[in-house]
Amino acid sequence: MQTFRVELGPASHPVHVGAGILDDLGSIARDAGLKPGRAVLITDSNVERHYAARAIEAIGKAGFAPTLAVVPAGEASKSAAVLESLYDRMVEAEIDRSAAVFALGGGVVGDLAGFAAATYLRGIAIVQVPTTMVAQVDSSLGGKTGINHARAKNLIGAFHQPRAIVADVATLGTLPEREFREGLAEVIKYGAIMDAAMIAALERDLGKIATRDNAALEQVVALSLRHKAAIVSSDERESGLRKILNFGHTVGHALEASAGYGSYLHGEAVAIGMAVAAALSERYGGLSADESARLVRLIGRAGLPVEMPPNARTPAFLAALRLDKKRAREAVEFVILEQLGRAITKPLEFGQILSAIAS
Amino acid sequence: MQTFRVELGPASHPVHVGAGILDDLGSIARDAGLKPGRAVLITDSNVERHYAARAIEAIGKAGFAPTLAVVPAGEASKSAAVLESLYDRMVEAEIDRSAAVFALGGGVVGDLAGFAAATYLRGIAIVQVPTTMVAQVDSSLGGKTGINHARAKNLIGAFHQPRAIVADVATLGTLPEREFREGLAEVIKYGAIMDAAMIAALERDLGKIATRDNAALEQVVALSLRHKAAIVSSDERESGLRKILNFGHTVGHALEASAGYGSYLHGEAVAIGMAVAAALSERYGGLSADESARLVRLIGRAGLPVEMPPNARTPAFLAALRLDKKRAREAVEFVILEQLGRAITKPLEFGQILSAIAS
Repeated sequence: MQTFRVELGPASHPVHVGAGILDDLGSIARDAGLKPGRAVLITDSNVERHYAARAIEAIGKAGFAPTLAVVPAGEASKSAAVLESLYDRMVEAEIDRSAAVFALGGGVVGDLAGFAAATYLRGIAIVQVPTTMVAQVDSSLGGKTGINHARAKNLIGAFHQPRAIVADVATLGTLPEREFREGLAEVIKYGAIMDAAMIAALERDLGKIATRDNAALEQVVALSLRHKAAIVSSDERESGLRKILNFGHTVGHALEASAGYGSYLHGEAVAIGMAVAAALSERYGGLSADESARLVRLIGRAGLPVEMPPNARTPAFLAALRLDKKRAREAVEFVILEQLGRAITKPLEFGQILSAIAS
Repeated sequence: MQTFRVELGPASHPVHVGAGILDDLGSIARDAGLKPGRAVLITDSNVERHYAARAIEAIGKAGFAPTLAVVPAGEASKSAAVLESLYDRMVEAEIDRSAAVFALGGGVVGDLAGFAAATYLRGIAIVQVPTTMVAQVDSSLGGKTGINHARAKNLIGAFHQPRAIVADVATLGTLPEREFREGLAEVIKYGAIMDAAMIAALERDLGKIATRDNAALEQVVALSLRHKAAIVSSDERESGLRKILNFGHTVGHALEASAGYGSYLHGEAVAIGMAVAAALSERYGGLSADESARLVRLIGRAGLPVEMPPNARTPAFLAALRLDKKRAREAVEFVILEQLGRAITKPLEFGQILSAIAS
């Protein structure tokens, strides 16, 4: 097991990454300062089947009395209606300020349960227990929580740091192949924006990672979270440095939104977005053609798409690009690479961005 | 005009109290660091009539381009449905992260608009512009925001500090008498829990205050907010000291909830709660009978009720008392006085609390 801390002043908290540590969830929560007592374990219908019983047992034996709240699997659960149902369940379970939430699942569960915890009685403790690759290497860390609005993803949300993050890499074993691979997009992103040596290591170890070797997964998940922790520590509220984490996300979000949520998984859209950003990095950031090609090749080897779909410049795509919430006036604050491992943000006009998108 | 700062580290912000300063709202917002641009002015149907046009003009001439969002007056607007309608309005107005919310109104508007600002794009800037006595002396300061749940008031919420508070005491001139007087309950509370000299000043100046003399109002509002700021600065998240601000509120909340919201105004219920707390303070805190009587007399002179209604111990009242969110296990953390100007919290059992409530 690897353990380290996310340094955020009073909101600092530990991160644990290892195989099989789901069974230590209760003791980890107590070590993080949570008092045994009432708790709610929020998960989704898929994850429940595999891991809810073990999680319940692990926190039960540490003195927590958990209520189980299961939401339907899928992005549609990040809604005001499902959020309301969670509040109702928490009131029924007499969850009070001293109680804790455990979020067991992927990004949807983490965001939704995180926002419920952020807003119930103005904020109660939460432990994030990510079980997907995307959640383990990215969304569980940083305190971003929220739900979707009919008009935009994650429009409603809050920053709410967890009291601990417990990433059991063995839970990745039950993940469908496509969902496992989408998480690799975020892993490659950390290398691209801040760690050239990590790109070389991924080029070398991708085979072992793809077979979900626990030791290789522990390495790659822990390194990803350490990188994210370093950025989040220096910029909790995304006012500056943290923006580089959006590498690949501006075009990725627009693609996700315009293709209809669900056509692309988030990581797949980000993979394509990173390939577009690599081209723009050559043009506007000084990234060498060689490094750009290495990055795109690695994304492809990870089983992820790197090409924009044909006829991508639909009115919906263009509208989504303009609606991107990182936009500032006419230009978009775009993350580009100067070289592998070094990212900057630069205002790019829509025309400049579109120059890298064929049709 | 009196100006001072609420010290909260990076969330520190100025407070302005004066007569006629609504017309300076825009320049005050800019001085507080807000960038001119898109903004949304949230108010209710009552306040709109009196002050929306002036507020719009004041922020417009400072370079803000405000959209007006009017919610129905009354506690019922602190609902998930009205909150959703605000989100919709903000999306329509293309409110982005750099935009600002202005909350013009009483406690309902401040709590609702504050929660909308806290959760829109994970938090955008808000300026609180309280126009009722309760909001000016209490609810606008401290960052508490939220809406009600069917089962409990303020169950859903977040801490979100405003970028500035602008209390124009001249706006109190249009307040119905009963709503003006309820605010005096919170004023008296500050004296009771932390400033014996303020009690003496109120005993002396109550006449001028009651005629809504601007100079007297500026004094009493500014002093109240300074006291609240001192407490909030030392305990932003209500983990300790801030609890003494709940003086009168445990019984007050239970009375409000069980009598049906609307039977008592919040300040009226708190007034009765303070009278009950005074009796309990004699019994369990060492408050002298003389000081207890002075406090109850002052509350009465302010035109506020001091007696529990007959047959108060209804099942609904008892249930509400147990559901009070400050409860811890069997006993309630109750705020009592050792003397005028000095409060402590003490766990009291339900039986002890009920001993001060006739039937």
